[in-house]
Amino acid sequence: MTTASPTWFHEEFSHTGSAIGFRITRKLDEVQSPFQKIEIFETTDWGNLMVIDGAMMVTTRDNFFYHEMMAHAPLFTHPAPKNVVIIGGGDCGTLREVLKHAGVVTAVQCDIDEQVTRMAEKYFPELCESNGDPRATVMFDDGIAYMANAAPGSIDIIIVDSTDPVGPAEGLFNRAFYESCLKALRPDGLLVQQSESPLALMHLIQDMRTAMREAGFQTFRTLPFPQPCYPTGYWSATIASKTARDLTDFREADAAAKSFRTTYYNAGIHRAALAMPEFMKAALPD
Amino acid sequence: MTTASPTWFHEEFSHTGSAIGFRITRKLDEVQSPFQKIEIFETTDWGNLMVIDGAMMVTTRDNFFYHEMMAHAPLFTHPAPKNVVIIGGGDCGTLREVLKHAGVVTAVQCDIDEQVTRMAEKYFPELCESNGDPRATVMFDDGIAYMANAAPGSIDIIIVDSTDPVGPAEGLFNRAFYESCLKALRPDGLLVQQSESPLALMHLIQDMRTAMREAGFQTFRTLPFPQPCYPTGYWSATIASKTARDLTDFREADAAAKSFRTTYYNAGIHRAALAMPEFMKAALPD
Repeated sequence: MTTASPTWFHEEFSHTGSAIGFRITRKLDEVQSPFQKIEIFETTDWGNLMVIDGAMMVTTRDNFFYHEMMAHAPLFTHPAPKNVVIIGGGDCGTLREVLKHAGVVTAVQCDIDEQVTRMAEKYFPELCESNGDPRATVMFDDGIAYMANAAPGSIDIIIVDSTDPVGPAEGLFNRAFYESCLKALRPDGLLVQQSESPLALMHLIQDMRTAMREAGFQTFRTLPFPQPCYPTGYWSATIASKTARDLTDFREADAAAKSFRTTYYNAGIHRAALAMPEFMKAALPD
Repeated sequence: MTTASPTWFHEEFSHTGSAIGFRITRKLDEVQSPFQKIEIFETTDWGNLMVIDGAMMVTTRDNFFYHEMMAHAPLFTHPAPKNVVIIGGGDCGTLREVLKHAGVVTAVQCDIDEQVTRMAEKYFPELCESNGDPRATVMFDDGIAYMANAAPGSIDIIIVDSTDPVGPAEGLFNRAFYESCLKALRPDGLLVQQSESPLALMHLIQDMRTAMREAGFQTFRTLPFPQPCYPTGYWSATIASKTARDLTDFREADAAAKSFRTTYYNAGIHRAALAMPEFMKAALPD
């Protein structure tokens, strides 16, 4: 607690009619990049908080749910991922989780906004601790162009770790982008994308899947998980496969024997995230 | 949408440093009972919202997570529940779920505050639709006294569906109350209690389990689930057993063949809720 009296920062989500807030002590930093406004707040109970264009992105305390599920769920679903590309992910937390897999040979993080990473290095250094890994490439470029120009059949897993489908990230949620991803993936390749709240934004998951299917992806699975700083506190990752494989079949024994530490993810939690609540079964019959 | 311009209602949780909000159009009702202040708001996206002493209790749209997990998880864990008692639960949503089980012979709901049920009848009629079931008894009395006076060995499942452990519900979270519960349960009886946020309020779950153990309960399991209107959006139910049985062993085939409709719960979700995230394994080793 600083000398300043704590106040509350609320993010009001107009599209869900709900809000999330944290008690903050002060604003630590603010930058207007060419793409978006990035603010960092100090909270009383959640460590630091990154806000982009008014939307909460990450807190020190609760980001592990998202980063672990976005990385380990697809990496343990793929038979042997070697080359991973992260589109977005500028806070570097997903990259850190990906690099925990010893079999990964290269991991490219391509975020359009260098300022997100600069802020993460300063206020979330633990998320950036693997940026110097010799297998890592941290670049700042347009993810849409990056995927359009990627060598065909060169990537095992593409992780789309972006902001919501408005503003800079809008082009990461449509058929043209998914077609680039499909082409860039090897035959057993997987695409995974953050897919918003299964309770409040199911239509968005349905639209994403429709566009992925039109682009040529064959099978899909949406894995829910808790994420307190995002709308409704209940979030999801959608995995799409280039081949018609069963995405509930993952390397469960490898996940159970993982050699690295996590805070949320384990083999049981991965299996659990494949269970579909009744309302999700009804909304996502395939 | 009414003619009034929508505004936001935020509940700020001082003990977690986080907040939840909903966009509301108007206050529909308010009553000061002998125990607490009950307010009902109309929201733009979540149906009606009940607030007790400033704490969100129920929305029309998201209460199914809590009520289904509080009822079906213990009822499918017990071998053959016939006599169920709900302490608290005045909105009647848990009672409705309990009565979906054809094997239940009696279900008593004992809430201290009649006004909660009167408000639920008016603004959440769907939750009260089973109150007239001949197996149901809806009474208004002190739950602590009710359990202290219950006939020994007469109950199969006690569901403690209360507000937070401050104010009227404080006495429902201590050893004396749990001793009354233990005595009132049959040998294979189960106690289940809402146990707050596993992320933000783990110390409370640990304290509850310690008090339950001191009262004589033998084994424990804490099942997490999403609950958007509660702090962090991530909630839990803790089940305690009178005998030293494995609480991960539930009537999975019966749950899979259930004859009633649910929105969240199914056999797969029950199995999923038994998976422990890494941080919960560390905090709750038994």
